[in-house]
Amino acid sequence: MKIRDVVVTPIAFPDPPLLNSAGVHEPWALRTIVQVFCDGLVGLGETYGDAPHLSLVQSAAGRLRGLDIYDLSELRRRVSLALGAADVPDRHGLTGASTTEKTLARVVSPFEVALLDLQGRTIGRPVHDLLGGKVRDLVPFSAYLFYKWAGHPNAEPDEWGAALDEEGIVAQARKMIDRYGFGSIKLKGGVFPPEQEIAAVRALRDAFPGLPLRLDPNAAWTVDTSIKVALETDGLLEYLEDPTGGRADMAAVAEKSPMPLATNMCVVAFADLPEAVERGSVGIVLADHHYWGGLRASAELAAICRTWGIGLSMHSNSHLGISLAAMTHLAAATPNLNYAVDTHTPWQSGVDVVADPLVISEGSARVPDTPGLGVTLDEDALARLHENWVRCGIRERDDTGYRQRVEPGFAKRRPRW
Amino acid sequence: MKIRDVVVTPIAFPDPPLLNSAGVHEPWALRTIVQVFCDGLVGLGETYGDAPHLSLVQSAAGRLRGLDIYDLSELRRRVSLALGAADVPDRHGLTGASTTEKTLARVVSPFEVALLDLQGRTIGRPVHDLLGGKVRDLVPFSAYLFYKWAGHPNAEPDEWGAALDEEGIVAQARKMIDRYGFGSIKLKGGVFPPEQEIAAVRALRDAFPGLPLRLDPNAAWTVDTSIKVALETDGLLEYLEDPTGGRADMAAVAEKSPMPLATNMCVVAFADLPEAVERGSVGIVLADHHYWGGLRASAELAAICRTWGIGLSMHSNSHLGISLAAMTHLAAATPNLNYAVDTHTPWQSGVDVVADPLVISEGSARVPDTPGLGVTLDEDALARLHENWVRCGIRERDDTGYRQRVEPGFAKRRPRW
Repeated sequence: MKIRDVVVTPIAFPDPPLLNSAGVHEPWALRTIVQVFCDGLVGLGETYGDAPHLSLVQSAAGRLRGLDIYDLSELRRRVSLALGAADVPDRHGLTGASTTEKTLARVVSPFEVALLDLQGRTIGRPVHDLLGGKVRDLVPFSAYLFYKWAGHPNAEPDEWGAALDEEGIVAQARKMIDRYGFGSIKLKGGVFPPEQEIAAVRALRDAFPGLPLRLDPNAAWTVDTSIKVALETDGLLEYLEDPTGGRADMAAVAEKSPMPLATNMCVVAFADLPEAVERGSVGIVLADHHYWGGLRASAELAAICRTWGIGLSMHSNSHLGISLAAMTHLAAATPNLNYAVDTHTPWQSGVDVVADPLVISEGSARVPDTPGLGVTLDEDALARLHENWVRCGIRERDDTGYRQRVEPGFAKRRPRW
Repeated sequence: MKIRDVVVTPIAFPDPPLLNSAGVHEPWALRTIVQVFCDGLVGLGETYGDAPHLSLVQSAAGRLRGLDIYDLSELRRRVSLALGAADVPDRHGLTGASTTEKTLARVVSPFEVALLDLQGRTIGRPVHDLLGGKVRDLVPFSAYLFYKWAGHPNAEPDEWGAALDEEGIVAQARKMIDRYGFGSIKLKGGVFPPEQEIAAVRALRDAFPGLPLRLDPNAAWTVDTSIKVALETDGLLEYLEDPTGGRADMAAVAEKSPMPLATNMCVVAFADLPEAVERGSVGIVLADHHYWGGLRASAELAAICRTWGIGLSMHSNSHLGISLAAMTHLAAATPNLNYAVDTHTPWQSGVDVVADPLVISEGSARVPDTPGLGVTLDEDALARLHENWVRCGIRERDDTGYRQRVEPGFAKRRPRW
């Protein structure tokens, strides 16, 4: 069961102009698809597409021939050797200062997923069985709302149209919930002054009285603003996500906040956990196998959260169907996943790199019981999406620069309010 | 891949009169062997043999027919249903107050091991592959020395003879190291006044200048005595194990102790970790899959130790070859196992329930790469050992009562000094 070959393919797919505290999504989102070949089978992985990361993934791929598909320890060792002291900053600033350990975790992840996919395919078992077995048949996802422009500059409005105030956000939520049946809602904030985003939360509460709501300004607020918003939204939010930056400031907010704080910014690696626990920075951690080092590492994170009584939710970046399947298997096998999972799936307009993506309906994805991840690469789609990448010219996500082209005075500031 | 049948067999095997702070080992040690049958294969597990535990294991076994061998989540659920609120105290007092969670972990463990063994046998892979792959080919074990009587009352001296002072301990160490090549030494203390045990440690240091030494009095000392011994043995011990009882008192000792403290008494379940971390009670946790809930749960413990910078060693009770194999696979797949593993193997005089026990030579066991645990049940031996159980009359380990029969004035006291 040795790896015969590894193919790494950068791709790009259309992305709507979704606003966040750093800027706005560019017309193309980047991603890297990993195929690992062994004994006539292929295992799939999906990860970030930014050039520095892509280059490390390619470099690691070159070291994997002959690796046994069960030997995840040796995978880590070989990737570590390939990376040396490489230390790639997260340009989007979401996960704090870079370290070689964080870089290693991000590069290991797509290969680990691909090897688990291969193991499952080889023995005819779903990936969740390799993680201890599923505890649920349906994984709930949340509607992930964004303030957005009607369309990209110099382009027609997209199918979602503008959402630049509470009416737009409620209309977006309604459309998304009509399509997917989501049973909870997350609003990406940090775009407008807090009062305006609080108004949107109130409007969502009025429009969807029974649905849990979350607000995530990506650390756009000071401690004082965060506390003010937390007090004003008391009773409205199931959790407030990364109102401010850093474990010390999050702890200061948590102390006064009536609802739990969640994070995918100040606890993003195992090394962050001891301080976060000691300070009481957060009540909920958003797992994400893409940067925690894979599915097994995410299961370890879950064990830690269970042990320390920390809630567990799941984070999403723009992604396609391999990541959706991996997230679903992980969620299925994680007893203490307490919240609906974030996903960007609705924003990808049905574009995918797999022929048989999981379907979200009535707010949930059914957990596949077929071998491996349960999804199949669409070779033609991969070729088309790679062609996009060749032609789009984008090599690193730059939400800030893109927004500045439209609003020259825009600056990324954390905190802004 | 559904379980067809489960067979639970209580056994007893001869045990020498090993002294500890609670009393002395009886002539027979109890153990329970679990066989799980599926598709013509059998998976093996080994656990404690005390009657209340045996009864729960039997009750859980009755619920497992039809269970898929990969569904460890469902295993836990079914065992939990079988146990209800059962809460079996650890009569030996080693692992503190009992809880339903601890009881569940102990009962799940042999079945989880047996299912991993079955998974491995089914797909032709060693158990360490199911734990992420081995990081070492040889697992080091330590010489586990005990003060002991020459033989059981009214019986001939056993092959080890008496060890009731430092000369006896050094002679025992020499014999054990000659046979097995151990590269580190653990002395079970708490039997004689601390000064006498310190003298034994000094004698071992003189006799074996290069070998790391550990001393484990099983919480026989007060905080003050513990600190005194720690200061007196500065430079002699790689770690001091459970000098005193409880996380608060251990933290008080740890603050003054020049060497790290280790435990298999005050951190024995996930629920114990937050307080132990907060107080700084210990520098090293001894994992033991028999009470942490199995191999996967022990791997989660290892992840927690890695994250919080806590050292990891491994604990042993009297055991036979199934446990030895399970411990070896776990140790092989645990990157941050920092210390040689404890084992009672030398005390079992070659008696075993498997036909092909792992061999400890030059201080280490070679990690099996054959399918599953890599050991095969010896049906005749199982029958003989079960016959021992039927005849020996011992149904619960009682080190204290047994010692009192010889020394009527003996009382179990913790702390004693």
